Amino acid sequence: MKLEKKLVEQITSRSEDFAQWYTDIVRKAELADYSSVRGCMIIRPYGYAIWEGIQKYVDTKIKETGHENVYMPIFIPEHLLEKEKEHVEGFAPEVAWVTEGGNEELAERLCVRPTSETLFCDHFAKIIHSYKDLPKLYNQWCSVIRWEKTTRPFLRTAEFLWQEGHTIHATKEEAEKETRYILNLYSDLCKDILAMPVIQGKKTESEKFAGAVDTYTIESLMHDGKALQAGTSHYLGENFARAFGIQYSDKEGKQRYVHYTTWAVTTRLIGAIIMIHGDDNGMVMPPRIAPIQVIVIPVAQHKEGVLKKANELKDRLSKIARVKIDDDADKTPGWKFSEYEMKGVPIRLEIGPKDIEKNQVVLARRDTGEKFTVSIDDLESQVTELLDKIHNSMYEKAKSFRDNNTRDALNMEQFKNIEENKSGFVRAMWCGDAKCEEKIREVTGATSRCIPFDQEHISDTCVCCGKKADKLVYWGRAY
Amino acid sequence: MKLEKKLVEQITSRSEDFAQWYTDIVRKAELADYSSVRGCMIIRPYGYAIWEGIQKYVDTKIKETGHENVYMPIFIPEHLLEKEKEHVEGFAPEVAWVTEGGNEELAERLCVRPTSETLFCDHFAKIIHSYKDLPKLYNQWCSVIRWEKTTRPFLRTAEFLWQEGHTIHATKEEAEKETRYILNLYSDLCKDILAMPVIQGKKTESEKFAGAVDTYTIESLMHDGKALQAGTSHYLGENFARAFGIQYSDKEGKQRYVHYTTWAVTTRLIGAIIMIHGDDNGMVMPPRIAPIQVIVIPVAQHKEGVLKKANELKDRLSKIARVKIDDDADKTPGWKFSEYEMKGVPIRLEIGPKDIEKNQVVLARRDTGEKFTVSIDDLESQVTELLDKIHNSMYEKAKSFRDNNTRDALNMEQFKNIEENKSGFVRAMWCGDAKCEEKIREVTGATSRCIPFDQEHISDTCVCCGKKADKLVYWGRAY
Repeated sequence: MKLEKKLVEQITSRSEDFAQWYTDIVRKAELADYSSVRGCMIIRPYGYAIWEGIQKYVDTKIKETGHENVYMPIFIPEHLLEKEKEHVEGFAPEVAWVTEGGNEELAERLCVRPTSETLFCDHFAKIIHSYKDLPKLYNQWCSVIRWEKTTRPFLRTAEFLWQEGHTIHATKEEAEKETRYILNLYSDLCKDILAMPVIQGKKTESEKFAGAVDTYTIESLMHDGKALQAGTSHYLGENFARAFGIQYSDKEGKQRYVHYTTWAVTTRLIGAIIMIHGDDNGMVMPPRIAPIQVIVIPVAQHKEGVLKKANELKDRLSKIARVKIDDDADKTPGWKFSEYEMKGVPIRLEIGPKDIEKNQVVLARRDTGEKFTVSIDDLESQVTELLDKIHNSMYEKAKSFRDNNTRDALNMEQFKNIEENKSGFVRAMWCGDAKCEEKIREVTGATSRCIPFDQEHISDTCVCCGKKADKLVYWGRAY
Repeated sequence: MKLEKKLVEQITSRSEDFAQWYTDIVRKAELADYSSVRGCMIIRPYGYAIWEGIQKYVDTKIKETGHENVYMPIFIPEHLLEKEKEHVEGFAPEVAWVTEGGNEELAERLCVRPTSETLFCDHFAKIIHSYKDLPKLYNQWCSVIRWEKTTRPFLRTAEFLWQEGHTIHATKEEAEKETRYILNLYSDLCKDILAMPVIQGKKTESEKFAGAVDTYTIESLMHDGKALQAGTSHYLGENFARAFGIQYSDKEGKQRYVHYTTWAVTTRLIGAIIMIHGDDNGMVMPPRIAPIQVIVIPVAQHKEGVLKKANELKDRLSKIARVKIDDDADKTPGWKFSEYEMKGVPIRLEIGPKDIEKNQVVLARRDTGEKFTVSIDDLESQVTELLDKIHNSMYEKAKSFRDNNTRDALNMEQFKNIEENKSGFVRAMWCGDAKCEEKIREVTGATSRCIPFDQEHISDTCVCCGKKADKLVYWGRAY
């Protein structure tokens, strides 16, 4: 008995309802699912494989430069969370508290970690004595909890996965070098692996991390014109070192405080991949992170030799790419085409009796829809080349979109006009006064995304107050 | 200015106070540290690297057979935990409860996962429809919480790291095959990577997992004669499928319940490595899991050419092994010898001016203390061979110890006598009655560890009641 063909369900059009389109892809490409726990998602195999790809890249890169992984407790006692004043003010409102354990009420509440600065510092204070103990370059892979009111899979969830780097250094210079090194690493991850262009820059005072001296960020633009913070790297100065007493004796025997950095990327990047590259047929996976890079689909597979040949090609390709074959006899090739389009598999390889006769296969690109035939003899080189080509073309497409949706505003009229009629990044000069920043938010809805490292002097005066201004800022509505 | 030489602190002798010896190693080999959170440990880089080695082995092996990683929420709503009766009875007494989030009291308590059967089943019920959806072979890497009263790093902690496999199958046969496949995988991990001999077998009714039909286990013997459960694999039958309504339609269109398996290994294995292989000088790391396999120590490193040669050898060896050089000029070679003995590095490579003259190096084995010289020309082959030799010899030594500490008891007098005067495994026949099992525990302090797959008929009668018995059981005091 044959199973009834499951029809690929339609997803909402991206232009019609971006938010619903996003949720449809998350569910129908089987990236994540809702759970019975408020605000917490289930990351399904296809979504988790993307995260594993990100982990592999980051983990390898940081280990090459001497970083080491550790594991800190999941709980933070209340008194510890309260040690650094700005930090606790930033996080306390959105934590979850454990108050009972083993059938007893706890003497002190434990918060489920929203971030682990306090635990790392508590530990550093114990293990650091001399300049010889520095630097310590630690990282942790774990989940964290932020009790968010409204949630969306990957973008804003009560629980998400991340890596959190925590490093301490003898000097400010070394610590700042580290934060910039990591920001570059994150940019490379986005550009080279996720085909995501980013703007590197510094956060303003009001947007920086709770407890940081400086927060550096990479900002990217989604297809609905909203900005997304894709990764952050913080220089926390001596603030935490003073609060936790992390001192070392320098070469002259003098006691000094360490300089601290923390940095993170999260499963939110999976949401960014969807919102930058996806289209009305579903996900479009950047090839280097795609869990499946090539899907082999036999056509007329009941005919003699087709399955054998298809499997042979799959085996050949599996030496150079992540490849899968779908030889389910109960589904039509058309059904399979839609299925793997939904999942965003970069290359579809079709092979049928006629192709075998001609010693060729059909390759179809997910990103452009182009189809062409290649000789079976050249398969490996053609696929390798095509994967690179797709990567570059997806990156360039996203970059063009961003550039086309980045506009300059010289005064508030222009700023308001852009925000009311268009979307995307607005570039505008800013005097540095938090009051202007706040007013811009009130009037236009846009927040400062970053003060880019690549500065340009597009006018002499602040877009808001008209006073002298020397900082170019990227503004936008943000996720 | 030179730093004062730090002296390697003595650790308690193993024979004098095993528990203190264990704790000393955990701290002084920098595997883990206590945290400010009751019962939770900090896993330090050296300890975490061991866990990463275990992860890599298990993750690679399960993926080769089609298992996929996923991520389930960290919290379980109380009503969900209560769905399977035996399961909740087993776990409810030792869970931690979140009762407040985002400054508000929660309408329903959330427990921090002690294990994730309930979440997986809740999800499976949604995604399983037809026999074509089966099997689902899922795994998750995460931390879990068990609110233990007394804790010890790695062995029993309020939080620990593990992998939890959750698979569902169409038939009992397939599910049972899976549990045995995984048990073999765990045995291979212990034997081939951790140099740990294990006994494979089945748990008795009273020792099995809360909610399981059958629990399979691998049991190992620690150097103090206590047993340690090193990994478990459970066949849970249809119990959870019925509680959560996980049904599929079979080829004939009939609704059937799935058959469920779960299985886990944890960071407890790190404790086992210490207690099986360690000695009075510290850790003895099995080579295949050792984060550092070879430590290069230059002797008289101020002399011309020594550091250069030592680094050259390190670079050569790093192509075939995990190798590190300690060229800190402020520490004596003697200090370094003790340091890496404490950390259990399998091979120490010493090289000084005289060695260079003779084109040789000195290799020292951590496990036996043997030292010998080898020609620099043969370095790679000698080190590769030696690492294998050390692995085999450590395994054989642990196996001999276990065999020498496994004794047969034919009646309760013999059983009591062994428990009072010796330690280790006791093999004895059992009638299958839980009352006898309970009485044995009361009288001797030993619990049933497993009914080994390799059965032997050492007598006709139950060691306790004297009635007819056909089951050989391993008994022991356990961690």
